[in-house]
Amino acid sequence: MDRRSFLKKSALGGSAAAASALAAPVYAQGNRTLTLVTTWGRGLAGVHDSAQYCADMITALTDGQLTVDLKAGGELVGAFEVFDAVSAGQADMYHGVDYYFLGQHPALSFFSQIPFGMTFMEYNNWLYHMGGQELADNLYSIFGLKAFAAGNTGPQSGGWFSKEINGPEDFQGLRFRMPGQGGQVLGKLGASVQNLPGAEVYQALSSGAIDGTEWIGPWADEKAGFQEVTNIYYTAGFHEPGPNLNIVTNLEVYESLTPAQQRAIEMTAQASNIWTMSLFMANNGSALQRLQSGGVKVMEFPDSVWDAFGAAAQEVIEEPMGDDIYKECYDSYMASMRSSASWAGISEGEYTRQRNRVIGL
Amino acid sequence: MDRRSFLKKSALGGSAAAASALAAPVYAQGNRTLTLVTTWGRGLAGVHDSAQYCADMITALTDGQLTVDLKAGGELVGAFEVFDAVSAGQADMYHGVDYYFLGQHPALSFFSQIPFGMTFMEYNNWLYHMGGQELADNLYSIFGLKAFAAGNTGPQSGGWFSKEINGPEDFQGLRFRMPGQGGQVLGKLGASVQNLPGAEVYQALSSGAIDGTEWIGPWADEKAGFQEVTNIYYTAGFHEPGPNLNIVTNLEVYESLTPAQQRAIEMTAQASNIWTMSLFMANNGSALQRLQSGGVKVMEFPDSVWDAFGAAAQEVIEEPMGDDIYKECYDSYMASMRSSASWAGISEGEYTRQRNRVIGL
Repeated sequence: MDRRSFLKKSALGGSAAAASALAAPVYAQGNRTLTLVTTWGRGLAGVHDSAQYCADMITALTDGQLTVDLKAGGELVGAFEVFDAVSAGQADMYHGVDYYFLGQHPALSFFSQIPFGMTFMEYNNWLYHMGGQELADNLYSIFGLKAFAAGNTGPQSGGWFSKEINGPEDFQGLRFRMPGQGGQVLGKLGASVQNLPGAEVYQALSSGAIDGTEWIGPWADEKAGFQEVTNIYYTAGFHEPGPNLNIVTNLEVYESLTPAQQRAIEMTAQASNIWTMSLFMANNGSALQRLQSGGVKVMEFPDSVWDAFGAAAQEVIEEPMGDDIYKECYDSYMASMRSSASWAGISEGEYTRQRNRVIGL
Repeated sequence: MDRRSFLKKSALGGSAAAASALAAPVYAQGNRTLTLVTTWGRGLAGVHDSAQYCADMITALTDGQLTVDLKAGGELVGAFEVFDAVSAGQADMYHGVDYYFLGQHPALSFFSQIPFGMTFMEYNNWLYHMGGQELADNLYSIFGLKAFAAGNTGPQSGGWFSKEINGPEDFQGLRFRMPGQGGQVLGKLGASVQNLPGAEVYQALSSGAIDGTEWIGPWADEKAGFQEVTNIYYTAGFHEPGPNLNIVTNLEVYESLTPAQQRAIEMTAQASNIWTMSLFMANNGSALQRLQSGGVKVMEFPDSVWDAFGAAAQEVIEEPMGDDIYKECYDSYMASMRSSASWAGISEGEYTRQRNRVIGL
């Protein structure tokens, strides 16, 4: 299929549907229940909390007009089936991270995470004010979906290892869990990469099916219990410096809502974006201290490993450039990241360097 | 007045009022207009935009039940009169930054900015998940107010100078605009500090009434036109690394709203928090480039100046410690900042350092 012509047709369809939404279709008048499926197992720290927060706030904001019923990964459809389920209308919405669905479209990586990509604030700059949301709207409309950023985990840890990583050669033959383009990068370094939903990682690690894993950061990782199996932990990672979680609604469902109900989803997503990010950040410092007290060895990758990550990441990121939509997103994303980084370094970067030096943080 | 006993009384009154809100008072059923006053002149880049965004989104979310009518600084009451006006019920809400009102209570600095204090994300961690909102609720209830974080400018620039700052002695006798505790710090270095609302700064600078000023950052400063008067610009500053803007509602008005209407204010504030921060961050990089192309000289303060800022800031921050509420906020704020900073350094800090090195940003 030619995605461009599909996109144009879809955009026209979208306008027509939006016009009919303004005319307030009959079934938007009554109270409705929307089913929200997720890529998370019930109770997974931070990520399930974020989905539940979205469900609760949309319900509260619409004062009973919409009730969002959360079905965690596996309860209605599997964690990796939510994209197809909502696209097909089997469920109304999903909350998840879209690098699980790169098989549907490689450009979904820009709206979840690319390796060596944007941090949380850099992503927000792009999404809200530098063209990101418009590109997301184009991409997701191909699949009959409407996506809003609804959370972020912050920079994800390099992960849990059973041995120290002293050079890129140490990834050779390593059986490691890492999703998305980050996993493709480790594959280029010779790792045997597995893509497992979060709820299945502990079992794979403790059974010896994998040698190591990344998941999120100290707080969520501690809750998952990986410190019971391995004890070498790299804090900074190249693969997910600010992975974006989306709440994604079936486009026909979205367009059948009243303008106030649509705003309730959009504003809840934005509110959840900062609430979720700060939930992780507020808990990571103390969790890392507990992990260290329990015997976990905290490390950083040496420069030679970062250099190898960088070279492999460049290959991975450029591979899908033959796709027009991917290239359009890439160009916009990279220009925005460069602009954001140029200011952050001499502003917040210089401030925190001086503050931490002067007051000893 | 004994603030503690006032606080207890107020908290009891609050509970009673909350209970009556659940019973849905008659005047919450009809459509209402809420008047929003601000500390900003109409059109001031970013900050007025943030207030307008809040007004529009509360109106949209409540589907006509609430219409928020924005009166910019000076249109109904002056920029520095909004706190008293909303506390007294002359207006329903204000959008502003609360270090303008330290005369009312010194602890308001924690909910706007203390020098050498938290960045945007550190503040969110504290506010949403480490006890900050509860402390804000206690403090603002003394004045019959309910406050939610509704925006942030990001790290503010050190400011505009007519001469280079080579040592702390260069502040001696300098007539400089800086509000809040930051201004008190410059006062300790011998500067003659003025506290002017944003809308009056350009006039003061261009008339020669002040020698220099800080305002926000490259984008808002360029819009204000300071580069027409001075051309030495320090990017990083000690005084406002992440100033929080609040939307503050008269507590009786707030408690008269339905639960869904209250949520509309809270969720709009949270959504505006990230929207406003990213609005500034998205525009600063390109604005700085334009300023530099136009002949502005971009500088950083030397370490000796940062050290002098640090010593004076410590004195300023500790001066109100005899006040119980101030001390309670101080202890909570500092513990939270230490925890956040410990994780950020080895996570996002290490990532951005490596990314910018590896891919040359």
